[in-house]
Amino acid sequence: MSTMQAVAKMQAGPGFELIREEIPPPGPREVLVKVTATSICGTDVHIYNWDKWSQGRIKPPLIVGHEFTGEIVEVGAQVRANEPQVGDYVSAESHIVCGVCQQCKLGQGHVCPNTRIIGVDTNGCYAEYITIPVENAWKNPPQMAPQVASLQENFGNAVHTVSAVDMRGKTVLITGCGPAGLMSIPVARAFGAEIIVTTDLSPYRLDLARKVGADLALNPREDDVARRAQDAVRGKSFDVLLEMSGAPAALIQGLHLLKPGGEASLLGLAPDTLDNFDMNNLVIMKGITLHGIAGRRLWETWYQMRALLAAKVVDLTPIITHEFPLSRWHEAVETMASGESGKIVMYPGE
Amino acid sequence: MSTMQAVAKMQAGPGFELIREEIPPPGPREVLVKVTATSICGTDVHIYNWDKWSQGRIKPPLIVGHEFTGEIVEVGAQVRANEPQVGDYVSAESHIVCGVCQQCKLGQGHVCPNTRIIGVDTNGCYAEYITIPVENAWKNPPQMAPQVASLQENFGNAVHTVSAVDMRGKTVLITGCGPAGLMSIPVARAFGAEIIVTTDLSPYRLDLARKVGADLALNPREDDVARRAQDAVRGKSFDVLLEMSGAPAALIQGLHLLKPGGEASLLGLAPDTLDNFDMNNLVIMKGITLHGIAGRRLWETWYQMRALLAAKVVDLTPIITHEFPLSRWHEAVETMASGESGKIVMYPGE
Amino acid sequence: MSTMQAVAKMQAGPGFELIREEIPPPGPREVLVKVTATSICGTDVHIYNWDKWSQGRIKPPLIVGHEFTGEIVEVGAQVRANEPQVGDYVSAESHIVCGVCQQCKLGQGHVCPNTRIIGVDTNGCYAEYITIPVENAWKNPPQMAPQVASLQENFGNAVHTVSAVDMRGKTVLITGCGPAGLMSIPVARAFGAEIIVTTDLSPYRLDLARKVGADLALNPREDDVARRAQDAVRGKSFDVLLEMSGAPAALIQGLHLLKPGGEASLLGLAPDTLDNFDMNNLVIMKGITLHGIAGRRLWETWYQMRALLAAKVVDLTPIITHEFPLSRWHEAVETMASGESGKIVMYPGE
Amino acid sequence: MSTMQAVAKMQAGPGFELIREEIPPPGPREVLVKVTATSICGTDVHIYNWDKWSQGRIKPPLIVGHEFTGEIVEVGAQVRANEPQVGDYVSAESHIVCGVCQQCKLGQGHVCPNTRIIGVDTNGCYAEYITIPVENAWKNPPQMAPQVASLQENFGNAVHTVSAVDMRGKTVLITGCGPAGLMSIPVARAFGAEIIVTTDLSPYRLDLARKVGADLALNPREDDVARRAQDAVRGKSFDVLLEMSGAPAALIQGLHLLKPGGEASLLGLAPDTLDNFDMNNLVIMKGITLHGIAGRRLWETWYQMRALLAAKVVDLTPIITHEFPLSRWHEAVETMASGESGKIVMYPGE
Repeated sequence: MSTMQAVAKMQAGPGFELIREEIPPPGPREVLVKVTATSICGTDVHIYNWDKWSQGRIKPPLIVGHEFTGEIVEVGAQVRANEPQVGDYVSAESHIVCGVCQQCKLGQGHVCPNTRIIGVDTNGCYAEYITIPVENAWKNPPQMAPQVASLQENFGNAVHTVSAVDMRGKTVLITGCGPAGLMSIPVARAFGAEIIVTTDLSPYRLDLARKVGADLALNPREDDVARRAQDAVRGKSFDVLLEMSGAPAALIQGLHLLKPGGEASLLGLAPDTLDNFDMNNLVIMKGITLHGIAGRRLWETWYQMRALLAAKVVDLTPIITHEFPLSRWHEAVETMASGESGKIVMYPGE
Repeated sequence: MSTMQAVAKMQAGPGFELIREEIPPPGPREVLVKVTATSICGTDVHIYNWDKWSQGRIKPPLIVGHEFTGEIVEVGAQVRANEPQVGDYVSAESHIVCGVCQQCKLGQGHVCPNTRIIGVDTNGCYAEYITIPVENAWKNPPQMAPQVASLQENFGNAVHTVSAVDMRGKTVLITGCGPAGLMSIPVARAFGAEIIVTTDLSPYRLDLARKVGADLALNPREDDVARRAQDAVRGKSFDVLLEMSGAPAALIQGLHLLKPGGEASLLGLAPDTLDNFDMNNLVIMKGITLHGIAGRRLWETWYQMRALLAAKVVDLTPIITHEFPLSRWHEAVETMASGESGKIVMYPGE
Repeated sequence: MSTMQAVAKMQAGPGFELIREEIPPPGPREVLVKVTATSICGTDVHIYNWDKWSQGRIKPPLIVGHEFTGEIVEVGAQVRANEPQVGDYVSAESHIVCGVCQQCKLGQGHVCPNTRIIGVDTNGCYAEYITIPVENAWKNPPQMAPQVASLQENFGNAVHTVSAVDMRGKTVLITGCGPAGLMSIPVARAFGAEIIVTTDLSPYRLDLARKVGADLALNPREDDVARRAQDAVRGKSFDVLLEMSGAPAALIQGLHLLKPGGEASLLGLAPDTLDNFDMNNLVIMKGITLHGIAGRRLWETWYQMRALLAAKVVDLTPIITHEFPLSRWHEAVETMASGESGKIVMYPGE
Repeated sequence: MSTMQAVAKMQAGPGFELIREEIPPPGPREVLVKVTATSICGTDVHIYNWDKWSQGRIKPPLIVGHEFTGEIVEVGAQVRANEPQVGDYVSAESHIVCGVCQQCKLGQGHVCPNTRIIGVDTNGCYAEYITIPVENAWKNPPQMAPQVASLQENFGNAVHTVSAVDMRGKTVLITGCGPAGLMSIPVARAFGAEIIVTTDLSPYRLDLARKVGADLALNPREDDVARRAQDAVRGKSFDVLLEMSGAPAALIQGLHLLKPGGEASLLGLAPDTLDNFDMNNLVIMKGITLHGIAGRRLWETWYQMRALLAAKVVDLTPIITHEFPLSRWHEAVETMASGESGKIVMYPGE
């Protein structure tokens, strides 16, 4: 078998195509992974829709997708014996970093300015096989379910967002219950949060939030969020805000509900720049610290993920709401785009 | 009723006595608390036994005891309206700190050099009533059980010990399963520990350790601790050591089992100075950080305790193994001294 | 002598008046301070001009001013022996905090929501005498010059802003060279900064910036700030931004010049809310941490100030550009309002 | 020229020999460096003397030495374009780490359990040429003097020791004024220390300590260290202890002089295990934190070194007390062994 099935952006414009392609040989410092599961990220939907960001970044033809797991079936000539080997069950860090810049050398590889992203800048994982640099392969424990192993790239965003702030004994407001927001709920709990209140506009997602452990899940369209959220935390403000929605209104309300001296982690990207943002009263005079979150800490976040999953204190399976064979990618992507889903996993070769 | 029952050290030498004493009036910045529950600490046993430390520190006559909870029944003339008031359900921080030294002004009141300790330097809580500085009264939520509220002073030692180190995703070795060691188990879990292994010489205490959540509880007298502990953490060394026993052998073995770059919190006090302590290989060349732990952080630890108990992620009731009326103090203290107990709670006025 | 000279806001509207007033007796927990020097803050100019903020906050009649030093001449009945006493040479923390809220109990008294500010909410220090809570009196070493001792309240804003970020070996961009910006320059150096670049629109202030140690002082009206600032740091972005101006353009340019993974401390208050603020690209995707800064850390900042001044690694005297007797307050305030000054000190009783 | 001069341990036993050896070709991921300066470390003296540690670790024949600087003259086939290249002026991190263990992946490469050390486990730099892994080559700014560039490996120990503790505004006791102790003095100052007191038994070294900036340099053989040290810090205890001597008496006295809640960094290795070490009173009950220090943080320490030297806030030249051509290695090593020196630099090819 020398060719494989893959889902690719073949030309500038909306849509993907199912193609057949040569199985790529690994470069000297790469490994070839047989993909067993791949999951869909919001970014993939942006590329599918060919939004403004995609138009500036994506160079077709490109196999898309960056969340996956699989088995190493071949390693390049310069892969060393103490690195991942054939037969290893791996997931991938999707950020290919340079390793030599100041960020990489100071433990901030997650913001390496030379980062290339799998499925964005290099061929991705909506395919039967993918080659990745050996440094990007992360060995999973054998008992981890493939659909969970695939999710880790995105789960890592949630873990990074939560871990940027001390959760021990804290009251936490999480604005936004998309996949990353949902996953942050059990992580916040596992790292010590006392009370977790979440918000979202989607009743479907609020139900999922309750299912994975939110103490209270509120809908700004229906609920008096400020009053009910504060009632849930003894009439006080929140110790911590995790902004996972990108909605400017959520960010601003979240900062209003944050206590003086509180901390916020911001993962959600707004559709545009912010207007009428009251930095004086929301941040400076309240002595707030804001953490902008990008990617995953290399490799603290991956170690934390492994522990959270191994200890079974985080169960991601309720967040996986749909599963498809890769050949039904179209249905999978459209479901993701609908907003009526948690994470969606696809299986190549089915 | 102007007199009260109390348990006191009446003269230099072993033993306590049950006495009747005037109910003390609160000073201008004090509150009078009607004690509803009080618990026994190892320190109380030392005072009872009149050990060397007690002989140097305790000035009889002295009502003993420093762990308790109760209701404020009177406040001094200078207690302000925003401070605890009559009717409040409180526990006490047992360290009366000066508030003006460098330690107090820099958030290190737990090591204030001017500290006086309730039941050690001032009359204690093995009594129907006690006066304490209003600053030492901590308001409990009404739903907290008195036997749990009483334990907080000691629980705070455990919380402080655990919180000195980042537990998130860590493997943790806890040497010593006395009350503080036992209480540290669910706290380590609540703050994110992945795997918790404990050691103790007492089968009774090892059973309690398993009951409150240890993944593995080993007895150095019977088990090959090094091998089995490392097996439990995938053949690696531990990320964190919590030394709660005071046994030199436990400290040394714990440091041997700690990974290069690991951290240890030390709460247990050794019976004597250490001999043959290999600082080079156990600490310096491994790049270990050791945290000496004293008291409770004022007031981070108390906020963390409140959250841990309110969120029900820590349940202290399995650790409370015996309850007595205060009049049966002798039986209670002897049980504590036997080592065959967890925490012991006494109730005045029964 | 039972009356004193003071400068006060006597009615709602612009301006101050020189008045004679009874010397106030200290309350039970207060001290009476004979003011030897007082300095002018931008806030005082706002109150003088009766801007919108002042109209909402200030209740005339009110003696103004909150930066000062002096000698304690009387203490209240409940001041304890281990607290400041008659004869002590003190400066004042201007924030009167409650001491009992969560912020105060967790080492965040600088954002106590119950804060009252001297000269804003209570009578101030543009006077021969002032009473303050004993907790707000900070003892100065005897050799400290009064004009320097008076400045500490404002100096503390600079020290707090700098100390919120690790300066060790860092390249630092400071936007804004008003008094706090100027004072932050030697502090950043003293705490380990490698290269310090500053910006301001005033040539007068840029000269002062060079005088107190900026490696490069740029004027956005005349210089290509981005190019020259980056040239000064080996063509890289900055490790740290200290925003001391409140100018939105400065904040935005500063964040552009900040490296991915960098940190910013924000002290300057903008004249209004921000429009077109690109949180995605300036903060989130770059993994930036922003620290809003209010007041001074109680009491870390004061200890740091004392050390910086005692070690003579910071010399504030070049920043003191004008001195007046208090009776010439009008000239002093107008000079401050002109922007052509550093700090201005006034001496009562001259 | 295909051979080079080198100083080597040729057989098990005391001494070194001057040899001629083939210039080694770089491996695929190595660079060949023409050594311009090399400096002597205490470890080299241990190897020379063939002490117990050396007997267990060193496998002759071995070219010794691990502190050096030079120019890259050849690179291996797999060195990438964004890595150090021919013509670059470099120093070397002496720890060759594995890059794949948990320590390496979590920013703790300085305690990688797979570390091999240049000049200890692989051929060293007392030679005209040396090959090192490209990852170990650190590019120096062109204006750095070679004798200073060579020192960085050891300077890094000092920087690491100091940087493990917050120095800002702190009073610091440094026990031991060997090279690392001496270098830590200006670093502590540059990172914000207020008052620095040092101790050593050698008048020669105490003079050097004063020269590089100690406020007070005391000799335990002659001075009442406790009294004079505390007098120097206003009669208080010290905020920070840096133990650089390895002398048990210095460690113990240093911990006695450390304030409750203080921190200590330990770099000095004792000649043997410690007896009669009072962990209870020196560490636990005082709430002390001890940091064991090994190697240099990869790569924080190197960035900090570069900044300290570039900003000229640390001048290492007074600490370089002797310079020799490499051919006079015997005299150089004997001078180092005498204790009557600071750092000693040797120049190959002279």
